[in-house]
This record gives sequence, structure tokens and C-alpha cells, in this order.
Amino acid sequence: MRILILGGDGYLGWPTAMHLAAQGHEVIAVDSYLRRQLCREVKVAPLYEVPELDKRCAIWHSLGGGKIAYQIGDLTEWEVIAGVFRDFGPQAVVHYAEQPAAPYSMLNRQAATLTLRNNLLVTANVIFAVKEFSPQAHLVKLGTMGEYGTPNIDIEEGWLEVEHKGRHQKFLYPRQAGSLYHTTKIMDTDLLWFYVRMWNLRVTDLMQGPVYGIFTAETGNDERLLPFFNYDEIFGTVLNRFVVQAVAGYPLTVFGKGGQTRGFLNIKDTLNCIRLAVENPADKGELRIFNQFTETFSVNELADKVKAVGTDFGLNVEIQHVENPRIEAEEHYYNPNHTGLMELGLKPHYLDDKTLAKMLQFAMNYRDSIARDQIYRQVKWA
Amino acid sequence: MRILILGGDGYLGWPTAMHLAAQGHEVIAVDSYLRRQLCREVKVAPLYEVPELDKRCAIWHSLGGGKIAYQIGDLTEWEVIAGVFRDFGPQAVVHYAEQPAAPYSMLNRQAATLTLRNNLLVTANVIFAVKEFSPQAHLVKLGTMGEYGTPNIDIEEGWLEVEHKGRHQKFLYPRQAGSLYHTTKIMDTDLLWFYVRMWNLRVTDLMQGPVYGIFTAETGNDERLLPFFNYDEIFGTVLNRFVVQAVAGYPLTVFGKGGQTRGFLNIKDTLNCIRLAVENPADKGELRIFNQFTETFSVNELADKVKAVGTDFGLNVEIQHVENPRIEAEEHYYNPNHTGLMELGLKPHYLDDKTLAKMLQFAMNYRDSIARDQIYRQVKWA
Repeated sequence: MRILILGGDGYLGWPTAMHLAAQGHEVIAVDSYLRRQLCREVKVAPLYEVPELDKRCAIWHSLGGGKIAYQIGDLTEWEVIAGVFRDFGPQAVVHYAEQPAAPYSMLNRQAATLTLRNNLLVTANVIFAVKEFSPQAHLVKLGTMGEYGTPNIDIEEGWLEVEHKGRHQKFLYPRQAGSLYHTTKIMDTDLLWFYVRMWNLRVTDLMQGPVYGIFTAETGNDERLLPFFNYDEIFGTVLNRFVVQAVAGYPLTVFGKGGQTRGFLNIKDTLNCIRLAVENPADKGELRIFNQFTETFSVNELADKVKAVGTDFGLNVEIQHVENPRIEAEEHYYNPNHTGLMELGLKPHYLDDKTLAKMLQFAMNYRDSIARDQIYRQVKWA
Repeated sequence: MRILILGGDGYLGWPTAMHLAAQGHEVIAVDSYLRRQLCREVKVAPLYEVPELDKRCAIWHSLGGGKIAYQIGDLTEWEVIAGVFRDFGPQAVVHYAEQPAAPYSMLNRQAATLTLRNNLLVTANVIFAVKEFSPQAHLVKLGTMGEYGTPNIDIEEGWLEVEHKGRHQKFLYPRQAGSLYHTTKIMDTDLLWFYVRMWNLRVTDLMQGPVYGIFTAETGNDERLLPFFNYDEIFGTVLNRFVVQAVAGYPLTVFGKGGQTRGFLNIKDTLNCIRLAVENPADKGELRIFNQFTETFSVNELADKVKAVGTDFGLNVEIQHVENPRIEAEEHYYNPNHTGLMELGLKPHYLDDKTLAKMLQFAMNYRDSIARDQIYRQVKWA
């Protein structure tokens, strides 16, 4: 299948490109390097250097991985995205091309505007490009579990059947997010749902939880193929960050009470979810929504796990509850459904001590290059 | 009260400016003339010439109406909106500054992108400006009944209490719109609700139905103070358009079966709703939502009313069912709640024959300047 990966340089974009190429698909990765630029702006960097797409594609190819094409361009520009669609004629489009960090979106007005503008205009352009050039293509869009927030009822998979005064209606599950970034993903869903109904598009919207991990089947033993691994509060996801904090002897910073519970997944499962979605496309006129995570943890539970495995490693791991710079429920009901991807065949990699140990061991190699001042930035929500 | 009216040149913005000024409020109207420009682009024009804001403010003042200040500027530009807030220090902000036409938003990709970009970036800038310069100010935002679409259950006023598997949660009423324009209003609501929760803003979001009418208490006998009156399919609301079609001897074009039902209101009631909202502000941290209409009609009912009154005028009014260029339910359940504004004191002007007769009589004065080719443009939804 010809698969276009938008945001193909990202933490998940690049491993997805390798994974789908390894499955024999024809892959082109497109990215504007926005995330690299924003990291430089806010003065954070991944734990190790990550080569740019030209080099990564060449390394992958030189190791026998088959061709991954790439293009650098800003997808908010219609001519860029139109050119890509015209030239490549994708049968599936995996859309990761968004400013991905909740704390970045809350940093200041400029960052908020950039997030809003980039995420909405790219998603709109993707929709228009599919309509104009590849109306049969299956669009696989990355949403987030954060769109749902933390309601006091079970979170269903995308939709909610409502009975009201004796009548019935199926709605998009009502969404209420906790950051501007997550709110732009709600808007993306609004936009996709509208155009699916108008233009009979074929869309899968994946409500993904926070991802952790570094290694995938395709990274092999070559560290130059590893994805971004940020450990700062802005671009680093919580478990990745805690692993590096444990190695650095930096207390695990739990915001407030630490009862914040989310659905997590291993990066390997992200790739499997994307592959399963791509290889089992949605129908024409269908907005198919899956909740993409494998198990739920509170922040306290994650901190405890990292502390336990870290202690086995001889690390002195402390847990520190700090004042919560965010506005969020620190204790709440959380019971999200997530059967759709399992039914498509997902075999989860659950978070066990071995997985954590492997991450810790890897981070130990970079112990001396950890910049402690990057870890805790306290981006305030208000 | 110092009241800032964003979009103060529009069909509703200008009459609102006069109305609030007449109530003794200090008013500044800001507009970019976007609507004037878009009308020129798509080659439609109001039934009569409408002076620009400088002239309108001068005429209003010369007739003893008190001062209305104005500024021309693009509110997607932060420096423009920041300057207005800094200089004026509003206590209330009435936000009409959006591309207002559903058919325009469906015209083509460029129009869709303009709508998305303008409406979202202006709303975001308004939120940021309130936060930075006037955190106590009450933001009165124009939403639309179209955000709800036509669900098969009663439409409540902004919110829905859901019981699900024995648990309860109050949500924003789930929204599902029928045009890109209406979808941008959903996104506005998403954005407002997020920042209300984060920043304790004070917001009223008015879900308004289609407005009809020309005359308000303040237009008096001077036609130079009348609002835009578009009768084209793109910028003209349905009843205004039917009135002009009746006068022009142009069949009333009902899309499809004509069972499409909406909540309508007289322009005089719009002004009263805005005034009531402004003079009874929402609390800090409250997103207050009212459904702003006074009565529901199907398109068939409106056509029949115009035909009946037109026939009394000696006009030969035909009703023609044409193929529906839009994608929408042509027969549906529709039972929206709208008690909030009534409880604040709204005294509706219901649509009666006298009101219609006055509109028809007025349009007759301009019979010779009706451009028939503007009426029916058949903007297709897909």
C-alpha cells in the first residue's frame, strides 16, 4: 500500500515509517521539522542526537530496510501538501503532523496561537487534499484520549448513545480537554466528523493515550534509528521523563496528589495500532474511532514502578509531590473502554519491570548528558 | 458601560452598536470590512448601499444619537486587538467578528480556509486580549443554533445531563453542525469552554438562530442607518431572501422537501438579547449559554407565510422546490429549549403578517435594483 506519513520525523512518526516500510508498504514521510524548531526555541533537547530525515532514511536503507522516501515542507501551505498528494497518490494517510505538546500549547499566547493555527490548518489541508486528489484514501488521524478529559461516567469508544426524555440519539462522545493542545484535537475531530458526513471520507481517528518507550522491532541495534526521546516537562511524556529523572538522581516530580489517571501504551503498540488501522480501513463515510491505549495508571503508580525498578538498579529514587502547575482533577473516576483495536488483533505489550529495566539501562548510557535544568519547567496553566 | 463591539459593521453588529449607544453605553465598533470584501469577491451586494462605519457613526451622531467610536482593523492581528483593548478598556465585549455565511464557507477550499482561520484566530485573540487586558470583562459571543444540528432528542440550553450506566455527568450539549461555518462555531465553543475553565473568564455564548428583519428602534426614518440587507443565497438569511424573491417575482426556492426547521428571531430581539446579556453578566468562571431564538418554523412554513402576505400585496408569489444543494435532513425532529433569555426579560417580537408586510413594502421600494442573478447561486455542499 502507498502510505503517506505526515509528521514522519516525530517521536512516533519515524518509527511508524520504519514499521510500515518493514511490512512491505511503500512509505513517504513528510515533516516540517516544527518539533525540532520548537525544542530549540524552548531550549530542550532529546537525550541523544537524532539525525534528520535524509540521514535516517539513508541509514535505514543502508541497513537493508527498503526505501523510505521523505519530503521536508510545511503542510499548512496548500501547495506543499497538494504537491505531495499529486506526486505520491497515497492509499492511506497517517496524520501525526501536529504540535504535540500540551505544556508547549500553554506556554504563552504565541505558542497557543501556533498550536491552534498549525494543528487546525494542517488537518483542514489534509482533508481538502484527500478530497481533491485521493478521495478513496483512508485517513488515519492521531487524536488523543485527552479529548475526553476525565468525565464521571465511563468513556466509550468515540460515541455515546444518549437517552433523553424518552428519545434516543447517538452523538460523538462529548469532549472536554485539559490543555489547548488537547482542545485542538477536539476541533480536529469536529472537522473530520463534519467532512466525513459531507464528503464520504474514510477516516479512523485514534484517541491515543500517553506513549512510553524507545525500542521497536525496526530500531534494531542501531541507535541512529531511535526516535526522539525527550525527558523535559514540555515535550517528554511522563514515563519517559520519570525514567531519566531516576537515572539523573532527580526526584520524580508528581504534580499535586498524583491521582491523575490516564491510559498508556508502549510505542510498539502504537505502531501495531497504526498498522492494524491502515490494513483494516474504515468504510467510506465512516468516522471510526478507537481508544488507543492498553492499560491505565495513575501518576503515583508510575512513579512507584519507576522507583521500585530503579532501586533494584542501585539508584536512589525519590518521589516528590510538587504544587500542580496545571489545572486538572488530581483524583477522579476513570474508566475508558478500549476494545476496538484488540478486536482488530492488537496484542498489547504491557508495562512490566523488564520493560522499565530496559529503559532505565538505556538511559544510564546517557547519564552524563542529561541536562537537569531541562527536566522541570513548571509551565503554568493559568 | 464601556462596550466593545467586534464585527461592528455587520448585519447585526451595527444595529447593536446603535442600540447599546442609545441605552447610554459607551460603544466602540471594530471591523475589518471582511464581509464587504467577501461580498464583492462573490459578486453579491445588499439591496441598498450601506455607508461605511465612519459615515454611519457621523450620521448617527448628527441625528443626536450620541457618540459611537469605530476602528477599522483585522482582529486576527494581535497588535490590532491588543491596541483596541489597551486603549478602550472594555467592560463588555460583544464578539460578532466572524465570517458569517454557511454557504460561503462551503464555496471552495480557499473560502473554507479563510473561514476557519478568521473565526478561530479572532476568537482566540479575543480570549487572549480579555485575559491580558480586561480579565473582569464579560465576553458575549455569538454562537449559532446550527452548532447543535438536528438531533433526535430535545436540544437543551447549552448543556446536557447524561446518565450512563448508573453514573452522571453534565456535558456541553453534543454538537454536530451542517456547514463548515457552523463547525467553526462549535470550535469556538470548545475554545471558550476550555479557557473559561482555565482562566475564570466570564462568558455568555449565544446560540442564535437565523435572524430576519431590517428595522430597529434606532434606525428611525433614516435609511442610511439601516443594516446590510442581503438577499443572495450566500449572505442573505432565508426569510430576508424570500421577501426579496417575492417582490422580484422570483419563485421562492425551497431546498428539497422544505421540512428543515430552525429557530428564528426578529433583528429587534437580537438587540434585546445582546443588551440583556450585557446588562446581566455571566459570573467569573461561567460559560453561560442561551439559545437565542423566539419561535421555530420550517422553510415550507416561511415560504407559505411570504406567499400569503405577498399575495395580499398583489404579488404573484410562487414556491418552487429545487434540488437541495446542501447535505441536510429535510424532515427531522426539532424541539429546542429557549427559556434563558425569556427569564432575563426578553419580550419577543413574533413573526406576524404585519411584520412581513412591512418588510415586503420596504423591499418594493428597491424592486428595480434587485439583481435576479444574485438570488440563487446553488452553492453545493459536496
